[in-house]
Order: sequence, then C-alpha cells, then structure tokens
Amino acid sequence: MYLGTLTDVPGIEVGHHTLAARPTGCTAVIARLGAIGGVDVRGAAPGTRETDLLAPANLVERVHAVLLAGGSAWGLDAAGGVMRWLEEQGIGLPVGQAPGQRVPIVPAAVLFDLHLGDARIRPGSQDGHAACQAASRQTVPQGCVGAGAGATVGKMFGLAHAMKGGIGSAALTLKGVTVGALVAVNAVGDVCDPASGVTLAGARTQDGAALRHTTRALLDGEPPLAILAGSNTTIGVIATDAPLTKAQAQRLATAGHDGLARAIAPVHTMSDGDTLFALSTGLAAHPGPGLNVLTTLAAEAVARACCNAARAAQGLRMDGLWLPAAADWR
Amino acid sequence: MYLGTLTDVPGIEVGHHTLAARPTGCTAVIARLGAIGGVDVRGAAPGTRETDLLAPANLVERVHAVLLAGGSAWGLDAAGGVMRWLEEQGIGLPVGQAPGQRVPIVPAAVLFDLHLGDARIRPGSQDGHAACQAASRQTVPQGCVGAGAGATVGKMFGLAHAMKGGIGSAALTLKGVTVGALVAVNAVGDVCDPASGVTLAGARTQDGAALRHTTRALLDGEPPLAILAGSNTTIGVIATDAPLTKAQAQRLATAGHDGLARAIAPVHTMSDGDTLFALSTGLAAHPGPGLNVLTTLAAEAVARACCNAARAAQGLRMDGLWLPAAADWR
Repeated sequence: MYLGTLTDVPGIEVGHHTLAARPTGCTAVIARLGAIGGVDVRGAAPGTRETDLLAPANLVERVHAVLLAGGSAWGLDAAGGVMRWLEEQGIGLPVGQAPGQRVPIVPAAVLFDLHLGDARIRPGSQDGHAACQAASRQTVPQGCVGAGAGATVGKMFGLAHAMKGGIGSAALTLKGVTVGALVAVNAVGDVCDPASGVTLAGARTQDGAALRHTTRALLDGEPPLAILAGSNTTIGVIATDAPLTKAQAQRLATAGHDGLARAIAPVHTMSDGDTLFALSTGLAAHPGPGLNVLTTLAAEAVARACCNAARAAQGLRMDGLWLPAAADWR
Repeated sequence: MYLGTLTDVPGIEVGHHTLAARPTGCTAVIARLGAIGGVDVRGAAPGTRETDLLAPANLVERVHAVLLAGGSAWGLDAAGGVMRWLEEQGIGLPVGQAPGQRVPIVPAAVLFDLHLGDARIRPGSQDGHAACQAASRQTVPQGCVGAGAGATVGKMFGLAHAMKGGIGSAALTLKGVTVGALVAVNAVGDVCDPASGVTLAGARTQDGAALRHTTRALLDGEPPLAILAGSNTTIGVIATDAPLTKAQAQRLATAGHDGLARAIAPVHTMSDGDTLFALSTGLAAHPGPGLNVLTTLAAEAVARACCNAARAAQGLRMDGLWLPAAADWR
C-alpha cells in the first residue's frame, strides 16, 4: 500500500457509510471552512450534481463538501443528506439572516453498482447524512467501503470475469504542502501500478484463474463484450492545503485524470463517467512548490489511490458470482 | 398573452406542484418515450443536476424528464422524486433485467426563492413526485405556480422594489413542426416584450409606483444594490417534435438564451444561474424547416414564454413586502 490518505490534508474530513443490505454506499469529503473547488468530467457516462457552478468563470468559489456515491443516478440524492448535515452544523453559503438561509454547496458524482444484489437498494439522503456523521480527520478506511463498496474492475469481457474494486486514498507532502486523493475505482479497465507495470486487478481469463490484461487482449483483437450504458465509472476527490484560485483547482482536477490514465487501462471509455473534483483548503503556511509541481503530485496521488483501492479491496461472493480481489491473488 | 404552451409539442407532458406553506414549488417536463437532450448553462450561479451527461460527446442521448424547481440547491432533491415516479411507470434507461435496473435520466435546474417566507420549506423528493402525478398534455398553467411560485424580477435595486415573476410558456408551429418553451423567470433584471419594447415587470422607483427601467438606470450611473450570491436565476425547457441529434439539441438550448437576452435585461449576470434545457421528441412526421429556423423559433418561444411568465404572474403581499405583478399595472 502507498502511504498517506486524503485526511492528511489540513481542513479535510472524510466519512464513509456502507449499506448493510447490498454492496453499495457513499463517502462524504467535508471542508468545514469551505474549499476552493474545481471539477473535470472526463468519462462519457457521468452522473453528477452541482458541477456547473464549479466552472472557473462562475460565482460560487467555496465548496463545503463533495459526495461520492454508488447507486448510479439514484445516489445523487445522498448529496441532499450531506446538505442537511452541513446545515445542522451551521455551514453553508449565507443567503440571508433568517433560519434556513444558508445553502451548503455540495457537488457530487456517482458510480454504477446496480448489478450487485437488489438494485432497488441505493444510497439516499439518510445515507449521505450518515457518511457525514462518520466523518473524521483519521486515516481514511480503504477497500470495499463507502462509495467503493460495490465497485468492480476489469469488466471489458463481462462481469463474470471481473474483479472487485473499491475506494483508495494516498497523499504526498512536499515543501510544506500536502496533496491527497481519494478515488472509488469502478472502471471497465484494469488497475495497474504505474511504478512497477504490474496489473493489480482486472479482467480474468476464461477459467478465471489469471489476469487477461485487457489492453493486450484488445490489441490482440479479442472482442469486448457489449458493455451496458453507464455501468462503470471512477470518481474521486483531490485535495490540497496549498492556496489555489478556482481556475487552478480545475487544473488540479484535470491533472488528476492523468493519474487515472496511468493506473487504469482502458479508462475514460464511453461506459465510464470518470469525474474528479479538486479542493483547496488554503490552510498551508507555505505557498507551496508551484502549480506544475502540485499537478504532478495530484496525478501521482490519484494513481497511488487507485492502486490502494485495488490492493485494499476484498473478494465478493454473491448470487453465484465470484469477484476476487487483488489480495486473493497474492 | 402569446399563444401556445410547451404541451403543444407531441410527446411532452408538464406538471406543476406548488407548495402550500410558502411560495415555492417545482415543475416536471416529462418525455415518456425519451427525448434527445441538450443543455446550455449560461448564468454564473447555476444549481444543476445531471447536466454533464448531456455534453454532445457523452453516451446517454435520451432524457426521460427535466425537473425545474425553487428552493435553491435544496430543490435538486425533487429530481429524485421524478426518478421515482418514472420508475413506477417502468420508464428509464435499462441497465439490466432485474427489478430496479432502470435508471430514469432526469436533468434538473433550480432557482433561488428562499427570501420569500420560511426558507426551511423547500421542494423535495415528494414534491417532484407530485409534479409528475399532476402532469398532463393539457395547456400548461402559467404564473405563480410550480417552479415559478416564488419567482421575482427586477431585483437590481433590492427586493423591496422588485416585482413578482412566475413561469410562462409559448409555442410556435411551422411547416409541420412545433417548438415550445417553458421558462421560470426569476431574474435580477426586468422583463421586456421585445416585440413592443415595453417593459412588463422589473425594478420599481423608490416610491414603488412606476418602473425604473434597470438598464437605463444603470446607464445613468445609478448604483445597484449588492446582490446576494445566487439569489436569482431563470430556468427553462425548450422542446420540439423535430428530430434532432444531441449536438443539435445543445444548439437549440444555446439559441434559447438569445430569447432570454431579448426578453430580460440585464440577464446572465453573476447572480443569475440561467440554464435552458432542450428536448427533441422526434415525433414530427416532417423533418422540419432546418436548424437555423428551429433555433430562431426557439429564441422566439423563449422570449414569448418570459413575457407570458410576467403577464400571468400575480402580485404577492407577504411579511410586510409588496411585490406587484405586471397584471397590477394595467
């Protein structure tokens, strides 16, 4: 496992809520004091909420939380529960003095996990609220929890040959500033550690006993299975305590996608809604090493978070399906 | 009033739900068979959900409903109720054969009306559901109903000098195809009929007895009041039965903003989250008059819908505030 998690970033709290009834859940990333926000939606099948306000030319600069959830588009309702929790704490954009006149800003993205168990069970408002109640500054739990509970990887040749994904985190500190990432990896593609070139989890061979190496298989002309619309998606949050403008925060989110490109292949497909948010709490005493170094750290943190997601995942046996995890292959 | 409403477009149903406890509500525009969708977010303070999937290069093409709501970002939860209603009807993107494996695609946008009455009362999931239950193919009710219930206009010099806005609709039929618009007008600026140059509703003079003509006042150097972040926003839906590609649907939404520019001034300010969706049901027997004519019709329908919103609005007396409507000036 790569060391460090998103809560190494001053001003950031993280909480998971995992549903008991089937593998799904949600994860709240909270910035109580507000954080300058950015987003980059790079997958072709995204499910999102409150991303338009993050465009650099738009008004609102500070985000109070980001919600990541399973449950496909249904999971977007969990953001309402995060808003409710923030309101209870007196956190939100003030729009007047009267009760109820604070609007918490909570962008959100969801991933598809409706093929594991009863699809009528999805994270909702109460689950978003529960994720906030579980939030802390402690090391972020990783693996099959929160938004990563129902995540799977290596689905190019069908779910029967896939493996279990999850949520992972990593953080790097340099010259007085920290850049962390938290990523729920639910890709069509395989997860590979770019530092070693080793594929950690992905599509398996017909007998299920070995990795198939999706990119190599596709280059060899093996036909992919028809993939259901939007049935995948990797989502995450990058955070730093380095002070950034809103446009720079978007740049950080964009750089994060290079981390996805290095650790997941294929990625950003027509069936992935890959979305990364970036948050700058600005709490660092130092200005940091400059944007070109911060974006390099962001890409590295995202890649490491993806690897940690695969490494921390646990195999799942369900409804006649066996989805081993990287840990099962060691 | 300009004639025609959004339900003149074959394949489109519209339902309002207006809350009794304070002036707010939501409006569902339903396309049971799905409609090719586009969006253009042109205001600087938007509140949106599921807009990223509408980018022309992205996967999902068909939208099952669009939800417009008051309540600022809180109102986004009402889209969950629309999804629930659509699921009950068996409508949604199929993502498997098992129960619950249909995901209704419901983009949404909200407007700010939290300064009228108790801001803790906002449209939620049950209200989105109720709007769907009220939906029909009948002429769309206009004025202070649904998403337009709490809409106001002419706020550049403060709410005390503003007037009541609302929701309005208009439709035009040409060469066998129809283009309709439904717009909830909650602008900072004034509403003006571009056909006559007459200001219908907007900021009033200090004594409240006459229109102040916001643009003219600003050009004369009168200072605007500091406007609260995101405390406005005009949102709407354009629909046509002409068959369009997804990229063309986005173009229709873009053209609609020219209608806003003609009927509202100022518009697209830092305090407006102006957002227009476009839907193509493709049910017309004719291919229609071509995109340049369709976009002209869209801009015209949007401008007329804005005028109808102002004309159909009713004055509101509340908490010591008097917000007259255009109808009160005749």
